[in-house]
Amino acid sequence: MTKVAACQVAPVLGDPAATRDLVAEAVRAAAAEGAQIVVLPELVSSGYAFVDDAEALAAAEPVDGPTLRLWQRLASEHRLVVVGGFCEDDGGERAFNSAAILDHRGVLAVYRKAHLWDRERLVFAAGSSAPPVVETEVGRVSTVICYDLEFPEWVRLPALAGAQLVAAPVNWPDSARPPGERPGEVIRVQADALVDRVCVVACDRVGTEREVAWVGGSVITDADGWVLAGGWATTAASVLVADVDLAAADDKGVGGLSDIHRDRRPDLYTGVLD
Amino acid sequence: MTKVAACQVAPVLGDPAATRDLVAEAVRAAAAEGAQIVVLPELVSSGYAFVDDAEALAAAEPVDGPTLRLWQRLASEHRLVVVGGFCEDDGGERAFNSAAILDHRGVLAVYRKAHLWDRERLVFAAGSSAPPVVETEVGRVSTVICYDLEFPEWVRLPALAGAQLVAAPVNWPDSARPPGERPGEVIRVQADALVDRVCVVACDRVGTEREVAWVGGSVITDADGWVLAGGWATTAASVLVADVDLAAADDKGVGGLSDIHRDRRPDLYTGVLD
Repeated sequence: MTKVAACQVAPVLGDPAATRDLVAEAVRAAAAEGAQIVVLPELVSSGYAFVDDAEALAAAEPVDGPTLRLWQRLASEHRLVVVGGFCEDDGGERAFNSAAILDHRGVLAVYRKAHLWDRERLVFAAGSSAPPVVETEVGRVSTVICYDLEFPEWVRLPALAGAQLVAAPVNWPDSARPPGERPGEVIRVQADALVDRVCVVACDRVGTEREVAWVGGSVITDADGWVLAGGWATTAASVLVADVDLAAADDKGVGGLSDIHRDRRPDLYTGVLD
Repeated sequence: MTKVAACQVAPVLGDPAATRDLVAEAVRAAAAEGAQIVVLPELVSSGYAFVDDAEALAAAEPVDGPTLRLWQRLASEHRLVVVGGFCEDDGGERAFNSAAILDHRGVLAVYRKAHLWDRERLVFAAGSSAPPVVETEVGRVSTVICYDLEFPEWVRLPALAGAQLVAAPVNWPDSARPPGERPGEVIRVQADALVDRVCVVACDRVGTEREVAWVGGSVITDADGWVLAGGWATTAASVLVADVDLAAADDKGVGGLSDIHRDRRPDLYTGVLD
């Protein structure tokens, strides 16, 4: 079993130093509960609700900026893997909506969101590389970001490449749902897990920002898609922790002779690429 | 709004005439409630739990056999669309696990299950054509069968081709789930609807057959993936009916500038085909 945590915090738009402090506090709380992998929200370095690309770029940091240096220090101090979203300045004209995977060795991978939601396409440059799959001390970890989770093809790629855990920083804007139902975003995460037999952790955020409210629906699932922690709309900052059997993701069997990856018929899926 | 029904019946293995009768009774009950589209379970002509391919072939019928002739008659009498699963004999060495779409004009399409679950691969020949999309009086209807629903690529194809409703005959074998949770099969259906903004109806079955028990989890969802009827495990035969806004599936918008089909990055999905 691997102890996986999601730090559902409220980043402070326009105050990155304060945000780094509250993230550090949440990571320490997760470490105190024994977390081996800690996931942070999308764009937790900066906040989300930028008015335009210039404002995003001004809030962006390079990979060796203060945010990732802090996460690396926390990863070393507590000997854990950190996956978090940050606003990345790579020297280009627009920032990327990125996620980094780090451990005590340093930054292991940087992924740039490929599916930009709503006005993000006016604010960020889109990534064009597949989600990375990184060997860590506790398992093979991949990352995608928020809206990426709504494209099953995109979770398929790291799952086919051997990922055991897909760690997704998200910022889920809240919307209506029937009473008693899990948020649609959570249902999609459960299905992402189910159709690839991969464990998934989505770390959402809380805290109203420029009139945007968030689901606060961070969720940790096992490879069967069952919710181990979270998965309901909330408004309070919290640290979710669950013991996850990452090795279960190595077995793609779904009953009898069935194997959810081997049973694919990719020769018939060409229309999906048209 | 279109009135969609799922006839969750218990086919009688080894007694096709009795099964045709109980299916006719269920379709009439759906018609009496105003159903315009009626969906029947997978292999409802024959039952499911065949010991081998010879037994399945012996129970199979051609497209102009008594089962589809009955469904066509019912479709004409009640002016509705029927989508149902049947064991198809096309003159080859093995039967197909097929579904037909019919209306008052006759058989509009026959689809053969492409993803064969567990021992089905020992019993049936696999189909190799994409799910059809058929214009009917009430909307554009597609069909896939049971395990097909676990492959998002396969639902993507008819959705990209304009289907408004994916009508899926299923036979869901029951399995354990945490208390209070919807069956995983239902969660996958909800996600199938969500990631393509397509309405989905899955018609399951009940009645123990050769020691196999079934979820009895027939479900009708809207294009937002919300459950309009069913969606919980049950053991009794029943006719589910819901008013479904099929036209909502024509709008792939998922918030602001986002469009769940246009926002795909198929140029990046090539690894999914490797």
